[in-house]
Amino acid sequence: MSIETITDELESAAKLTEEEIFAAHEGGKLSISSTVPLADKRDLSIAYTPGVAEVSRAIHAKPELARTHTWAQRLVAVVSDGTAVLGLGNIGASASLPVMEGKSALFKAFGDLDSIPLVLDTTDVDEIIETLVRLRPSFGAVNLEDISAPRCFELEERLIEALDCPVMHDDQHGTAVVALAALTNAAKVTGRELSELKVVVSGAGAAGIAVSEILLTAGVTDVVLLDSKGVLNAERADLAADPSSIKARFAWRTNPRGVSGGPAEALLGADVFIGVSSSKLAEEHLALMNHSSIVFALSNPDPEVLPDVAAKYAAVVATGRSDFPNQINNVLAFPGIFRGALDAGARRITPAMKLAAARAIAELAEEDLSANYIVPSPLDPRVAPAVTAAVAAAVSE
Amino acid sequence: MSIETITDELESAAKLTEEEIFAAHEGGKLSISSTVPLADKRDLSIAYTPGVAEVSRAIHAKPELARTHTWAQRLVAVVSDGTAVLGLGNIGASASLPVMEGKSALFKAFGDLDSIPLVLDTTDVDEIIETLVRLRPSFGAVNLEDISAPRCFELEERLIEALDCPVMHDDQHGTAVVALAALTNAAKVTGRELSELKVVVSGAGAAGIAVSEILLTAGVTDVVLLDSKGVLNAERADLAADPSSIKARFAWRTNPRGVSGGPAEALLGADVFIGVSSSKLAEEHLALMNHSSIVFALSNPDPEVLPDVAAKYAAVVATGRSDFPNQINNVLAFPGIFRGALDAGARRITPAMKLAAARAIAELAEEDLSANYIVPSPLDPRVAPAVTAAVAAAVSE
Repeated sequence: MSIETITDELESAAKLTEEEIFAAHEGGKLSISSTVPLADKRDLSIAYTPGVAEVSRAIHAKPELARTHTWAQRLVAVVSDGTAVLGLGNIGASASLPVMEGKSALFKAFGDLDSIPLVLDTTDVDEIIETLVRLRPSFGAVNLEDISAPRCFELEERLIEALDCPVMHDDQHGTAVVALAALTNAAKVTGRELSELKVVVSGAGAAGIAVSEILLTAGVTDVVLLDSKGVLNAERADLAADPSSIKARFAWRTNPRGVSGGPAEALLGADVFIGVSSSKLAEEHLALMNHSSIVFALSNPDPEVLPDVAAKYAAVVATGRSDFPNQINNVLAFPGIFRGALDAGARRITPAMKLAAARAIAELAEEDLSANYIVPSPLDPRVAPAVTAAVAAAVSE
Repeated sequence: MSIETITDELESAAKLTEEEIFAAHEGGKLSISSTVPLADKRDLSIAYTPGVAEVSRAIHAKPELARTHTWAQRLVAVVSDGTAVLGLGNIGASASLPVMEGKSALFKAFGDLDSIPLVLDTTDVDEIIETLVRLRPSFGAVNLEDISAPRCFELEERLIEALDCPVMHDDQHGTAVVALAALTNAAKVTGRELSELKVVVSGAGAAGIAVSEILLTAGVTDVVLLDSKGVLNAERADLAADPSSIKARFAWRTNPRGVSGGPAEALLGADVFIGVSSSKLAEEHLALMNHSSIVFALSNPDPEVLPDVAAKYAAVVATGRSDFPNQINNVLAFPGIFRGALDAGARRITPAMKLAAARAIAELAEEDLSANYIVPSPLDPRVAPAVTAAVAAAVSE
């Protein structure tokens, strides 16, 4: 993409006016409709009383009929407590609702899945779990969204135990799946194997931890995690003091070369930088990376480093933005992951299902693979069906 | 309606096959859609990131914007714990879901209101309230449905206190509003005033209590309530033993002539019978009523007395069924009540709003008023807009 094209697209994005945005969101963005006719008495007798009594009675007698004769089995609850909304932080449940409505709109547009936003006026993990357990018969899966770290890890882990249905915190795993897909293809473009890459992940929050986790699962052996205090390693006093924390656990699982220090020490000789915090990546640190490096600067709206700067050093550059090439966007993953899990009747979203999703996304870009095309466009209509099929197949594996 | 027409309609209703009913309910009956386009990058930028961040930020700064820029303000939560589902009793939350989906479909079809079924895997009143308080930012009103008595009274009362939005148990007040509308016109047809009617309400559950309540509010002075143990009066041992129970409270508020005994004593000289239990009304008791009596046999699917039997004694007969004249159906009331309350930004559904709804329903039938037409058809498209307008106007009164 030329600088001119980028400038054009930025200008076009800049053309979004406040009026236009607020007008689109007025009255909310979702609508419910009936899938059955309600035009005459006969319709009413079938859809409501007395007909519906037959269906309720049947489900009472044979609970598994709820899977086929209610909408719950294909319904995703999009759940947030509003504690980590986009880049806005803890703005509360009500202010998070426009985002959750948008997420539901994306579920429908890309996965043909119904979903309802449930925003919770509590940030207590026990209370959130309790609430969803009580609501369990109302939905078929839970997409956790915009929940702050480290609470999000405990919440997801415990919710998976508490509910017999797919649960996924998309800020973690959606991002991780697409990042893995992109890295798989970036490695291919630069002629390397995942297993030989030295990867630095900047940010040890929801996305950073999940990205590290999926890379380790996919066979990457050398991952170094950075947070605001520097490289995570087992000797760091704050981590040693709290050995059961998620960061401490990842300090043990990552960093095989025992790197310590800050971004300079981490990036020296690294092949890959994946930024999922808002910390900037300085050009002099970028210069320390290996030849033909790979830079994913995923923070939105301001990437850790701008693509034109990164391109001076890196062979492949990706961001989270639609106005640069190689957009790493969760929408490539979550509609198909949930759709595949629900279609196959999965009780959990397993590592194998996430790997299958990443592989499916990567494969779709393979035909036209280049440094500027390592993942399909978020609008590519082939993506969700391919991810759905791959995830569903991985359920029975 | 001739006996032939009735037979035809019954036969047509009987023609509903199990296959047909189950096919209509397969996959559930609701669907979510986006009200904004999601076809290109620009659409995504407006509906989701980065555009949505502007809206979330604005709501955080000015919480009242959630009323205009989320769907919550026009969203009804249709809430059940599955303890009193249709005539099926306590069949549980999951088996109640087809009914709640149907209710949501009716909200949309008749009130153009969005709603989501929330079925709860708890029957504990404290837990139900706690759950809905936590979910408060997700919706704009609560329609309680199919919750057993006497729990439903406490639940509704406490929920009204706990939530700053309209809450209504439809099995109580929807039924009450339509019964009052029908009685207003039945009194007119038989040339009487509400205030001079002697009314017997058979059934002291959700509907019976609410019908009695609204009749007293509307100016009926002589209401006698019957339950399975006979007439409610202050001397009855079970009621005296539990004076704070809802039945004891109604024993005090009703029965001004101090009637005691059973259906025979209650119906002797009564003008109106309103049946909302499944107890049969014997023909010899019917014969004890005043001349030109009014009989509402509202139990479904089996009325307390069949219309052809009732018509031997009564001047006006109504049931809950679509295959007889004068169908008393909640759908005449609830879509307009909730729509009117939400349109007007009401925090509560007051007695004045319920009376206004009943008046609006009654007025629509006035033009063609006859013994066989005391309420409009549930499918009459004029009803919901008229009720909406009347209820909204009553909010500011």
